[in-house]
Amino acid sequence: MASFGHGGNIKEISRQNGIDYNNIIDFSANINPLGMPVSVKSAIIEGLQQIEKYPDITYFELKNAIADFENINKDNIILGNGAAEVLFNIVRGINPKNSLILAPTFSEYEEAITSVSGSITSYVLKEEKNFEIQEDILNYINEDLNLICICNPNNPTGVVTSKEILEKILIKSKSNDVMLLIDESFLDFIEEDLSMMEYVKDYKNLIIIKSLTKFFALPGIRIGYGICSDETFLEKINKIIPAWNINIFAEIATKESLKDENYIKTTLEFIRNEKQYVYNELKKIKQIKVYKPSANFILLRTKDKVDLKQNLLQNNILIRSCSNYEGLNENYYRIAIRSRDENAKLIKYIKKNLQK
Amino acid sequence: MASFGHGGNIKEISRQNGIDYNNIIDFSANINPLGMPVSVKSAIIEGLQQIEKYPDITYFELKNAIADFENINKDNIILGNGAAEVLFNIVRGINPKNSLILAPTFSEYEEAITSVSGSITSYVLKEEKNFEIQEDILNYINEDLNLICICNPNNPTGVVTSKEILEKILIKSKSNDVMLLIDESFLDFIEEDLSMMEYVKDYKNLIIIKSLTKFFALPGIRIGYGICSDETFLEKINKIIPAWNINIFAEIATKESLKDENYIKTTLEFIRNEKQYVYNELKKIKQIKVYKPSANFILLRTKDKVDLKQNLLQNNILIRSCSNYEGLNENYYRIAIRSRDENAKLIKYIKKNLQK
Repeated sequence: MASFGHGGNIKEISRQNGIDYNNIIDFSANINPLGMPVSVKSAIIEGLQQIEKYPDITYFELKNAIADFENINKDNIILGNGAAEVLFNIVRGINPKNSLILAPTFSEYEEAITSVSGSITSYVLKEEKNFEIQEDILNYINEDLNLICICNPNNPTGVVTSKEILEKILIKSKSNDVMLLIDESFLDFIEEDLSMMEYVKDYKNLIIIKSLTKFFALPGIRIGYGICSDETFLEKINKIIPAWNINIFAEIATKESLKDENYIKTTLEFIRNEKQYVYNELKKIKQIKVYKPSANFILLRTKDKVDLKQNLLQNNILIRSCSNYEGLNENYYRIAIRSRDENAKLIKYIKKNLQK
Repeated sequence: MASFGHGGNIKEISRQNGIDYNNIIDFSANINPLGMPVSVKSAIIEGLQQIEKYPDITYFELKNAIADFENINKDNIILGNGAAEVLFNIVRGINPKNSLILAPTFSEYEEAITSVSGSITSYVLKEEKNFEIQEDILNYINEDLNLICICNPNNPTGVVTSKEILEKILIKSKSNDVMLLIDESFLDFIEEDLSMMEYVKDYKNLIIIKSLTKFFALPGIRIGYGICSDETFLEKINKIIPAWNINIFAEIATKESLKDENYIKTTLEFIRNEKQYVYNELKKIKQIKVYKPSANFILLRTKDKVDLKQNLLQNNILIRSCSNYEGLNENYYRIAIRSRDENAKLIKYIKKNLQK
């Protein structure tokens, strides 16, 4: 597998630290704390017998469900086993010589580009600018560039990029024949309309990637998709994707999840409240700096040097160290929003750890 | 997806022909007629909650289960969403300029090689030689060749290749720096020992691919693997595979299936008897020629021109037309072995169709 520097790797960590896997509270993976929709569970049990048949090779119903949800053309969908696989296949299709990615950002962009031997320029997000993309990113776009990857909201900072600046990037990219890949995997957690999905049909150089893993709490099931309207590119991509690449549970779970409006509404309310609570509580701890969250996770920095991740593991709490992100260091940590009890426990132990 | 010329595509076919999907008896996909092991079903229901966690990024337990079953080193395993994905990734890793494949054979070898713009030479299997590989295949192996793909038993002919000839191919391939890929996806159905697995540790140019889909009746779940002992190659492959590419149900089902010795034994007995029955019955029909089966499927040829596939669809029976295989034509069909009742029904309707 491409990398071990990810969150959510609790089995490996429990083996390494001799801790029972089931006792760990995992704040390292940014998964909806409400758990998967109840409708998904029953649909899977009901559909169990479908294991014995090949998935529909055209993924007709699955693509229709996504097309309805995103209000896009079903033929513009690229399916994958998680957003990471979609990304790898798209990067293979583009085969970029020169790419621009943010720093810090999700590590898989770099890994996908490196896997096809592409070279990478980092657009460094500055802490003094609140890790926000500035207009000077436009200076990086020229005819030598092939691909820009922007994660919106960005992971692990949680910082969002406005439609206004994304539109400028998109237009300059188009005129320079550069593909713009926007990863909106965490955007469903944000109530403000920041999606660039509506631009897809007019901009063939725009590709949007989404994961269903996070919002619908389905990381074990592996499903993600890309949206693009460039027919030539789609044809190329479809040739490098093997037949039946998506399992039937991913199909069943996606169809159920996307129509579960009540789950979507409840999640947004829950995350809104809980995020505010955790943010407020963390701000009271003077040994850390907390960055304003947007989605379902929060970036923080300890002012003194302390191995907060390893220390919290003693309390069966797993958080994400951000030491391996370019532009961050071992003082940065990312935590997911979980239930009130779990969040309170996290805050309590962070305080205990830093205030002793 | 790469191709629509496969068996098992019953959803698409039922849509096209206005037939209820659930009524079709599918002889087009070569799936174990006993259905998935009962142990798999209960393990999945029990493990349902694991959907909410990422799979183990190292696939520690999954790889251990496969290593135990195949009696090989766990670090030699390449996992994929079905053997097709394993194949595509391996071909990406090799990036062969010149490849040799059989004709006829499973179409995904050609598609995988074409997806990296490789050129292909066909080793044409002759009907008058019972579609068997002859020693003259060795003449095709030289320093300009990069990859040979051999499906054993071959699909759709069912013809097996002996260890003796495979060893000769392997040795000549090694001395010419050619990778030999052997697809043993149907070999578990055959009681004779024909596997080249034991050669993997001594021959770095040997890669064996396997699917669990067919034998354990799990096509909906997507799991397959490759075995290779070339560390440099494995490192390269692992860089082009995204993190968490395998879903947790594939992990659960594999672990359960591979230890279900009773299921394996029962399947072998069932297929042995049923294959003999279908073969004997088909041989009695003088309008067709039947080829001796080895695994869980049978190739046949109608002596007159008749659209047997379309005709049998009227009886809710789906068989695989082999018209799109190089070296075969529209007179060839492949049928899977199913239950006695279903097999009897198939034979009855083939007779009705051809003897009217």
